[in-house]
Amino acid sequence: MKYTDYVDLKYKPKKTDLICEFYMEPASKIKPHEAAGAIASESSIGTWTDVTEAPKRIDRLVAKVFSIKGNKGYYIKIAYPSVLFELNNIPQILSSIAGNIFGMKTIKNLKLLDIEFPENIIKSFRGPMYGIYGVRKLLKVKDRPLLGTIIKPKLGLNEKEHAQVAYNAWIGGCDIVKDDENLSSQSFNKFLTRVIETLKARDKAEEKTGEKKMYMPNITAETEEMLRRARFVKKHGCEYAMIDIVSCGWGALQTLREENEKLKLVLHAHRAGYAALSRNPRHGISMLVIAKLTRLIGLDQLHIGTIVGKMETPKTEVVGLDQEMEQSMILDHRLESRHMLEQRWYHIKPTFAVCSGGLHPGHISYLVKHLGKNIIIQMGGGIHGHPLGTFGGAKAARQALTAVMEGKTLKNYAKTHIELKKALEFF
Amino acid sequence: MKYTDYVDLKYKPKKTDLICEFYMEPASKIKPHEAAGAIASESSIGTWTDVTEAPKRIDRLVAKVFSIKGNKGYYIKIAYPSVLFELNNIPQILSSIAGNIFGMKTIKNLKLLDIEFPENIIKSFRGPMYGIYGVRKLLKVKDRPLLGTIIKPKLGLNEKEHAQVAYNAWIGGCDIVKDDENLSSQSFNKFLTRVIETLKARDKAEEKTGEKKMYMPNITAETEEMLRRARFVKKHGCEYAMIDIVSCGWGALQTLREENEKLKLVLHAHRAGYAALSRNPRHGISMLVIAKLTRLIGLDQLHIGTIVGKMETPKTEVVGLDQEMEQSMILDHRLESRHMLEQRWYHIKPTFAVCSGGLHPGHISYLVKHLGKNIIIQMGGGIHGHPLGTFGGAKAARQALTAVMEGKTLKNYAKTHIELKKALEFF
Repeated sequence: MKYTDYVDLKYKPKKTDLICEFYMEPASKIKPHEAAGAIASESSIGTWTDVTEAPKRIDRLVAKVFSIKGNKGYYIKIAYPSVLFELNNIPQILSSIAGNIFGMKTIKNLKLLDIEFPENIIKSFRGPMYGIYGVRKLLKVKDRPLLGTIIKPKLGLNEKEHAQVAYNAWIGGCDIVKDDENLSSQSFNKFLTRVIETLKARDKAEEKTGEKKMYMPNITAETEEMLRRARFVKKHGCEYAMIDIVSCGWGALQTLREENEKLKLVLHAHRAGYAALSRNPRHGISMLVIAKLTRLIGLDQLHIGTIVGKMETPKTEVVGLDQEMEQSMILDHRLESRHMLEQRWYHIKPTFAVCSGGLHPGHISYLVKHLGKNIIIQMGGGIHGHPLGTFGGAKAARQALTAVMEGKTLKNYAKTHIELKKALEFF
Repeated sequence: MKYTDYVDLKYKPKKTDLICEFYMEPASKIKPHEAAGAIASESSIGTWTDVTEAPKRIDRLVAKVFSIKGNKGYYIKIAYPSVLFELNNIPQILSSIAGNIFGMKTIKNLKLLDIEFPENIIKSFRGPMYGIYGVRKLLKVKDRPLLGTIIKPKLGLNEKEHAQVAYNAWIGGCDIVKDDENLSSQSFNKFLTRVIETLKARDKAEEKTGEKKMYMPNITAETEEMLRRARFVKKHGCEYAMIDIVSCGWGALQTLREENEKLKLVLHAHRAGYAALSRNPRHGISMLVIAKLTRLIGLDQLHIGTIVGKMETPKTEVVGLDQEMEQSMILDHRLESRHMLEQRWYHIKPTFAVCSGGLHPGHISYLVKHLGKNIIIQMGGGIHGHPLGTFGGAKAARQALTAVMEGKTLKNYAKTHIELKKALEFF
């Protein structure tokens, strides 16, 4: 078979096919049909030359390029028979459709933009245990965004200092406090002691405020140690665990979700490192793909960006991610040139979208306007950098949230709320 | 602290510092010192604004940019106090130095080129159990490259067909037969049956040839299932397991290496997907970093590219990777503009470099010339696409290897070796 034999623009994908959309730039002197066919070949059953003794029946397994659009840069769609994939095995799926193809000489740039999973693959995964509505029930917060903070400075506080900062944030008005992504168990702040100290602070904060308060300890480590840490937090009365999904990897994530059938923790996904894969618009793997895999495996909360703030997260991307996490049926958004494939999520619960990265109280109205109320708004520096410190910062953030929910302008609300006033002046 | 406070070009890194070299392009209107400082800040203890209540002593933990070179695109070096990192925790290390920084607005492009690990971090990892010389001892092959093949077609053969192709490759002259990277346990070829059938074929091939033959089954799956598969292959008398390191992720890899203290398998690393991270010269994570992490964790064999063949792998990169895998002391290669940092490997054994991807018998002399004898040469299509089929293809490959080791030209050797002759004519 030649590479171009993998192209069939008349092919109508079957309901059982897995569909991928790629952005592709062929290498110089390579025609788009040949480059697209090379991708379909290498990511299904082919290699650079024909195999002498291959049984004829195997031709049924070829992937087919059924759409090629654009010039110089092309958007291509490939349909893969779902028998190519092992059910409930994300690493195997990625080794096919996001494996060798990125390194092929026939292409110059290649980005995996989206994957549409067929029913049998979707149904082989668990999805989130809680999802948006399960988390809301646990927190007893029905219809406003949740407010979270990340302990700052990122690293360097000892366990008791960490717990004290958490306490100040909770009594100021935060629902959730999380560790930073690069805090795990270092010599200056050991995991086990930190969890115990911070949960003590949580209990005190719950008593003082009468509200439910949550702590998300970062259990990032090799898989067995990660599971030990997850069991430890559960044993000590914590409802949450947080994990750096890209640094730990898909194998570990699936294992954690499996173990979570017993632990029943809310799983929070931090995406540190995703942008190494997704930031370049012409090469790599999109954040949309990372997000879909995360929902499919079954994490309850996922960072999707902020539109505003310290990170580069374009508005159309973040809005698309928010929809993909929240809805049960995603329509093909090609007309809006968003390159989101159709996706029916079947039994998979929605994942709570988290906005985090350079946010402060002044951003809340903007976020709610564009992303709705089903989001978790996290502020690190925007709370701990407040002129009145963490307690004042958390108060300001909660005031801003209340104002937005009551339909008031922040400016007006700040007239009678000194912490918000100071935040708006300062940031 | 301002971002530029993280820059100190007079700083002399300590022996205990972890050093990173990045390629960086600042966002428009951002000066290189500010962008470099932002990276050092976000990847150590800082965020976008000062934290009001941070204890002063934490300033000792800041990372320092101590070198900025170039214009428009900059090569920067950052020194991190090693106390920032948890020992034996690759995900945590990556969440720091390869985490949020890729998504920051202050940069346009960022590539992590190399990491120099200090002694205490190196010593917290196991490294390969066998390494090059342990593998050679197992295979009883002292001083020639090892010859391997990948079963083709990639997918679609059933278990018995798979075993038969393996048998033909072994008796033709291959030392090693491996599964393809996207074959795990699909409905048409179940893992457990495949392993049993293929090991039977291996035993027969060993008997027929009098040589030691190895099978590398692909155990890629979520961590617990991967470990179950590893235990299964061990129990059935297999010496090897193969894993897709990028698709499975760092958490799973560390866990496998830990479990391998009991299993004592040779671990083979397939890098499918690495090029999503590493191919773009201006953004992402270099293959050198992936290779160093793999050696540090302790996989015995790793794909490093081919220079020639179907994949894009430049010669200087592949030669550099080969050195980094094989040697115990790497010098700073800045003068050759290779951007490889110094690295002392202490107790860590060398990892066997694997060349694979579009190779055929005609390539062997070229590979040995550039990479020496301490390599594993794998051919898939270059063996199974031979006009005489797998058996003839394997014979041709082994003939080419023998010719090169005996200092003969392939052309001359082919005069008396029909399989090699046909291979040279065909490919």
